[in-house]
Parts: sequence; C-alpha cells; structure tokens
Amino acid sequence: MGDGSGDRRGRLDPADWESFRRHGHALFDRLIDQLQGVADGPVWRPVPVDVIQRLAIPCPDRPAGLGDLLADLEETILPYGAGNTHPRFWGWVHGSGTPGGVLAEMAAAALNANCGGRDHAAIYVERLVVDWVKEWFGFPDEAGGLLVGGTSMANLLGLAVARTRHCGEAVRSDGLAGRRLTAYASAEVHMSSAKAFELMGLGHQALRKVAVDGAYRMDMAALAAAVERDRRQGMSPFAVIASVGTVNTGAIDPLPALADFCRDQGLWLHVDGAFGALLALAPELAPRLAGIERADSLAFDFHKWLHVPYDAACLLVRDGALQKATFAGRPDYLAAAGGLAGGEPWPCDLGFELSRGFKALKVWFTIREQGTDRLGASIAANCAQARVLERLVTNSPRLEMLTPVSLNIVCCRYRVAGWDDERLDRLNANLVAQLHLRGIAAPSTCRIGGKLAVRVCITNHRSHDDDFAVLARAMEEIGGELARDAL
Amino acid sequence: MGDGSGDRRGRLDPADWESFRRHGHALFDRLIDQLQGVADGPVWRPVPVDVIQRLAIPCPDRPAGLGDLLADLEETILPYGAGNTHPRFWGWVHGSGTPGGVLAEMAAAALNANCGGRDHAAIYVERLVVDWVKEWFGFPDEAGGLLVGGTSMANLLGLAVARTRHCGEAVRSDGLAGRRLTAYASAEVHMSSAKAFELMGLGHQALRKVAVDGAYRMDMAALAAAVERDRRQGMSPFAVIASVGTVNTGAIDPLPALADFCRDQGLWLHVDGAFGALLALAPELAPRLAGIERADSLAFDFHKWLHVPYDAACLLVRDGALQKATFAGRPDYLAAAGGLAGGEPWPCDLGFELSRGFKALKVWFTIREQGTDRLGASIAANCAQARVLERLVTNSPRLEMLTPVSLNIVCCRYRVAGWDDERLDRLNANLVAQLHLRGIAAPSTCRIGGKLAVRVCITNHRSHDDDFAVLARAMEEIGGELARDAL
Repeated sequence: MGDGSGDRRGRLDPADWESFRRHGHALFDRLIDQLQGVADGPVWRPVPVDVIQRLAIPCPDRPAGLGDLLADLEETILPYGAGNTHPRFWGWVHGSGTPGGVLAEMAAAALNANCGGRDHAAIYVERLVVDWVKEWFGFPDEAGGLLVGGTSMANLLGLAVARTRHCGEAVRSDGLAGRRLTAYASAEVHMSSAKAFELMGLGHQALRKVAVDGAYRMDMAALAAAVERDRRQGMSPFAVIASVGTVNTGAIDPLPALADFCRDQGLWLHVDGAFGALLALAPELAPRLAGIERADSLAFDFHKWLHVPYDAACLLVRDGALQKATFAGRPDYLAAAGGLAGGEPWPCDLGFELSRGFKALKVWFTIREQGTDRLGASIAANCAQARVLERLVTNSPRLEMLTPVSLNIVCCRYRVAGWDDERLDRLNANLVAQLHLRGIAAPSTCRIGGKLAVRVCITNHRSHDDDFAVLARAMEEIGGELARDAL
Repeated sequence: MGDGSGDRRGRLDPADWESFRRHGHALFDRLIDQLQGVADGPVWRPVPVDVIQRLAIPCPDRPAGLGDLLADLEETILPYGAGNTHPRFWGWVHGSGTPGGVLAEMAAAALNANCGGRDHAAIYVERLVVDWVKEWFGFPDEAGGLLVGGTSMANLLGLAVARTRHCGEAVRSDGLAGRRLTAYASAEVHMSSAKAFELMGLGHQALRKVAVDGAYRMDMAALAAAVERDRRQGMSPFAVIASVGTVNTGAIDPLPALADFCRDQGLWLHVDGAFGALLALAPELAPRLAGIERADSLAFDFHKWLHVPYDAACLLVRDGALQKATFAGRPDYLAAAGGLAGGEPWPCDLGFELSRGFKALKVWFTIREQGTDRLGASIAANCAQARVLERLVTNSPRLEMLTPVSLNIVCCRYRVAGWDDERLDRLNANLVAQLHLRGIAAPSTCRIGGKLAVRVCITNHRSHDDDFAVLARAMEEIGGELARDAL
C-alpha cells in the first residue's frame, strides 16, 4: 500500500515533508504571536501602496518556494487585517475569533470533509451541533437545522421554506406563476431579507416595511394594518420577519405578540437573530427572547457573538419535514446506497448547497472549548460594556447619545454648541475615519433619526472596560481638533 | 496598550498560552502525519457505533480541557473522514486537499477576515485571484468576479444576473410579476441549476431539459426547436446553461455553437464548469474549452480539481457592471466612508452574502504554492488515468465499460454472462458498497442508459496508475464472490 512518502506522494504534496513541517510550525507560532499580542498594535492600518503592488503579481505558472510564499503571507497579508481581532474593534457586527478556532480550522482543512452528505464523522458532528442549538431555542426534536455561511443565506432558506408552506410543494416545479406574495418586517430589518426577496423573484417591494415604535421595535398595530390592507388588495401575505437585534440599535421585535399574530393570521414567523439570538446563552438576557421558541424558522450567525472564525451560521426550521420537502432531491449519481454512500439524511437535502465545508467542526470546538456559560458571560459582558460607554458619553460635555442603549450598541457623537446636524455629520464621519487611521479604535457609523452616529457595536470578547475610556477620550480629543480645524 | 497577555487576555483566549501552543503544535503534527501516511490506511471506514455514542454528548456548559477536547477530535473525528484525501477515492466529484491548504486555512482563521467589504488585505487578495481567473478563461478586464462556497451558489448568482439582463433592474423591486421565463440545459445538466430555478421562483419546469447526442452533449437542433416552441407559446426564453464536464460522463456541451446560438437569439450563456472548467490549466486539454471565453457567466469550483480545501468556488460575469446592478445596495450602517470603511467596491455588492470568510487566501496560496503548470499537469494526469482504467476494464473478461471515456470519468461494471440488467445492477451496487466497507477504493455509482454503473471520477492528485490496477483486481474478485453468493 506504500509507505506514505516517496513514490506514494501526491503530485501536490510537499517534496520535503520535514521542511514543510518546520514551516508549518513556524507559521503557527507567528499566528499565535499575532493573536496573543494583538492589543499591542493598532486596531487597523491601511494597506500601504507598495504592499498592494507587491501582492499584484501575474498568475504564477511555476511554484513559489514555501519560504518565499510564507514570507509574502506574513509581510503583505497578516499585518493588514480588518482589525476585528483587536480589543477596540467595534465596527459593523464582527466576531473576534479565538485561538481555538485556528486549531479547529487547521483540522477541518486536513480532513477536507465535504458535508453535502455521505457517511462520515463530520455529518454526525453537524447533527450534534444542530441538536444543541435546537435546545438553546426550545425547538422540538423534529425541527430541522443546517449550517450555512451566514444569516443572509439562512434567511433566504428559511423564507423559501415559508414559501413552500404557503404555495405548496408544486412551487418547486411551477414557480410563483403570478402569485403576489407579501411579507412583513420592521423598518429596521436588515437588508439581507430584502436581498432574499429579490433573489426569490418576489421583489423587495413584496417585503413590506412596518413602522417601529420609540424603541425601534415593530409596531403591532401598523403590522396588522399592513396585512389587512394587502389582503384587501388581493395580495397574498405569507410571512413575518422578526428582527432580534437590529443593526442600528439592537432592538428586539415583540416576539410573543408576533407569534400570536402569525398564528391567528396563518403567517410564517421567521426570526432574523443574526447576532441577537445568542442572548439565549446569557441567563440574565435570555428572557428578552421570550417567544423565540414559537418561531417557524430562525437564522443566526456563529461567527459574530460566538466568535467562531468566519464563516458559519445556522438555520433552524420547526417543521423539519417541510424543510426537506423544500430542498430534497438527488439525481442518480448521488443516490443513497450502502457503505460510504449511506448516512441519510444528507445535509444537501436540507438546503441549497451541495458541496459544503465542515463548518460544524469550528462550532463544535468553540462550544466544547469554552462551554456555554463562558460564551454567555462574554455576551453579557459586552452588553454591560455598552452601559459603561453610555455613562462615559453622558458624563462628557463634548459627547452625546443619539438613542439610549438597549443591548450592546452605543450610537453617540461629538457635539459642538451651535452647529447644525449637517456640520456635525461631517465632523463625526471624519472623527470615525481618524479613529481608524490613527489605529485607536474601529467603530463604524449609522444614521439615527437622520443624524450620523458614531456606532459602537460591542461583539468582542477581548474588549475591557478601559478600552471604552480610551475611545471616549480619543473622541473628545479628535473631535476637538476637527472642530477647531473647521473654524 | 497592554502587553498582550495576563490582564489583556480576551475572555475566550487561552488561560495558558504556552500550553495552548504545545497542543497546537502537536495537533499540527498529528494532522500532517495523517496526510503523509494516508495511503497506508483504508480509503474509508464506517464510524463505529461507540464513537457515535461518545460524540453525542449534551451541550456542555463548562469548558472542556484542551487536552481532552483534542483527544476527542483525534479519536472520534479525524479517523472517520469521507476518504477523499486517499489515493483511491474516486466517488462523486471530490477534491483531495493539500497540506498547503492546511497552512492557508490556519492563517485565515487567525486573521478572521470578513470579506464582505472594507479596506484590508483580504479584499485585495480576492480581487487578485479573480483577476488571475479572468485571464484563465479569456474574460475581459471589466468582467466581475466573486468567490462563493460552491458552484451551486455561483450558478444561482450567474442566473440572477441573467435575469436582470432580461427583465431589467426593476425585477429587483417588482419581482417576476407573472413573467414566464424559461432557460435551457442539456438533459445531463447538474441538479444544482434546477435547484437555482426553484429558489428564484421560476420553478424547475422553467429549466427545459434538451436532448443530448451520443456523446452526452447538448443537441443543438433540439435546443433550437425547444426555444422556438417556447417563444411560440408565449414563454420568455432568457438563458442557456452549458455544462462543461457533466457528472455522469464528463461531457462538454458544444460551446462555440452555443455561443453563436445565444448571440443570435439574444440569450444569456451561462457555463456550469464545476470541475471541467479547470481543464483551462492543462494545455493539452484546454482546446476542448474553446468558446468558453464567449460565456456571459461562468461558475466553477476550486475545491474539486484545484484541491483547495472545502469550500471555495468562483463566479465570473462578463458584464461586471450588470453583476453589480443585480446585487449592490447597502444601508446606512455599511455606507462607504474613510479609513477602514473604504475599500470600494465591496464584494458584498457583487453577490448575495454579506459576511464572507477569506476563501481567497487558500486559493491564492494553492496557486502560488503549486503554480498553474503543475496544477494543470495533475488534471491532465487524471484524464490519462481514466484511459489506464478503461484499458484495464476492456482487457478484463469480467468487466465492461458502459460508455467510452471522454475525460476523467470511467463508468464500468462487473458482468456475468446470462444475467439481466436488474441482477447486474444489484450486484454492482453491492460491489461498490463492498469496496467501501473493505476500505479498498471509493468509487460511487450512477445510471448510464438505465444501467447501474460503477462510476470512477478521477479528481485526485494522489492517485497513481497502480491504484487503478488495485481497483480492477478488487472489482474482479469481489464481483466474483458476489456472483457466486447469488447462485
């Protein structure tokens, strides 16, 4: 059978395994050095022009030496990350990753499992992870679940199952055939749902944006009126999308009222819980999710608040049989059979993708390495840190909150007496860019009531309370500089 | 700024970095041992019942010790792969992975880049890889490209751009609105295109299956007749999907004729080249792809014949502006701005997903580590090996080919004089299961002219010519056993 070396070497395997191992160990140490020392560096630095030029080589027809290749990796790529492993990265909604995630991903790459189906350990690991997650959210045993790349995909697949429920399975062969389906979400819903409506051929106008209350939660009266109006006009409402953790303010739509409404109206309740759903792991915050166990489908990310390396997300569907009825179907060459061709049910029958990487391994590894108590405590700590920053802002004569904190997001800005919003918007946009360029902190921006906010979204297990003091001080100082420059 | 350890440690970082490093180095060696010695073990072994039971623990609330966790990984998961890293794995269409891919994935996990957008090195690497790929296929500079998880997704996105071309951008807001779109593919097209039609709300009946010629290529006369019939009946044809490397036989649809036809008919030409497109890297085989440079969109995988670890695939679109017009649009919180929020264009505007892992790194690493000459030579070697196996089968009195080899796939079976197809189908299905269960080889099965074939799809850089002699001999022996048992 060969001795695993010499003539049994694959054409793309290393010519010198020992040299390969030495390089691999050195790379591993270099990567862990970077993670261990991340707080010592800037949160972000621009990619220098000469580095961009060095990267942009013509496609190589000959092999690079491994040493040269790793030098390029270490000099042109590794120093120029987006910054989301740093304690003062709070932009958009990013996870921080973990060193354990590095171990899981190297193992997944070596195993190189295709989790579309077949009978191998990776399939059992994915099922186990899905079973754990069902428990987190009170979903029944017969619920279906699937790991995907992000909540965008999980939303799309959940809405596709909702469409099957509404239209019947014939929609798979016959398509929409002129049906005028509509669904409903709050005005604060993430754009990924609108993109799902576009891809599904429904058009984003079919996703009705419902007004929100003062806390940015869907207004139930406005929802009822919208559904009633659409029914009267011959539209065919089929689903409501509840946001659990909106991107601007972390608002959570009223789940019990939505579950009641959907039950009474015969509508599918899909929950977009991209980051917010993981509040389920923090006992002091989980009560805010009351009602989530009544959702028909639920989408959320592991790569945000669980800090699993990018990318990994999950879809749960209460009616697992309907999920399968929406996606299942395999041609001859994938037919179930004995041996390796066993292992039913195959994950590819539960979603859209056929070739699928072993995302479940990094999720399994993270949950086992950390345990849900510590994962939940890290989430709760981030929400407490939002209050810390809120106090710093409120106590500063130069800073102001644009909306109260409800979860883990702080929307604030530098203020200058007598300036109108347009001038303040410009100043605060520059302020955020300066925080990036100086490597101090990485918040992002959004609009609250039309005003540009410095948006600090805390999904970061490396942030400490004093990091927020650094931010507040830097905002005061740089804001002051910019205000003086503008005079 | 802290010293990167002690009090600056993230809540999910290791308590003991030195111990963590020791475990990481040991895991790396364990993984490389497994790859280096893969030929010495069985191609596959079932997951034992006691291993499945050991895996199935309740969701842990407390941390596992890293040593215990890695022991579980090494004992319950790593030995039970699908076998696709082994030299005698030829099932379905799987890539084999490479040790270099392990390095790339560990670096990607440490960097933890979200490639949805922003200004960081990962974005430049993805653009570079897309530029290289455009050159492989003769696509123009203004073409758009995006890395995705698999050809299923790349097909879906390419077809969505085709829909925009046909319907106009208003389809994004208004949906299909009763339009009766149709598209065309050969009867051998991969099921992923039908699934794309389902998801897009068109229904899979809108994807017309066109008859094939004796070499399993789309019949141009049948295509013309189908389009003409649909136009007459008020349907709205918008696209043709060309298969480059069908799953059953590796057939390549007649690209120049299809390009002419689509030009004349005003139809979009999408190429599904999941594995076959990479023939472009093998000079002796690339001429078979003549005409691919005229495609409007092209989808293919890196995780198959380029052996990049799962998962990674690519979509190219000739009209990059139309691709952007189909998907672009970002809300306030993702607005372009200075600093880290720069880096336009953002990849999330070129496809469906917003959070996106750094798949480009393993593609970049593989191409640079190997060079395209060697990658192409490995592909050509696999096609030559299909001829080797074809000769072994043809020379054996016990084996027969079910269709001639045209690329890298051998469809053959064990035969018994006087047996009808039904008995032979049962025997050959058992034969494949026995090859798996005995750990000898992992072909899969398909149907050729209704007959069950042992399907040997050679996309494996570790296969040597003598591996096919092992297969042919085992088929003769096990086939003989099964035939005797049936008497």
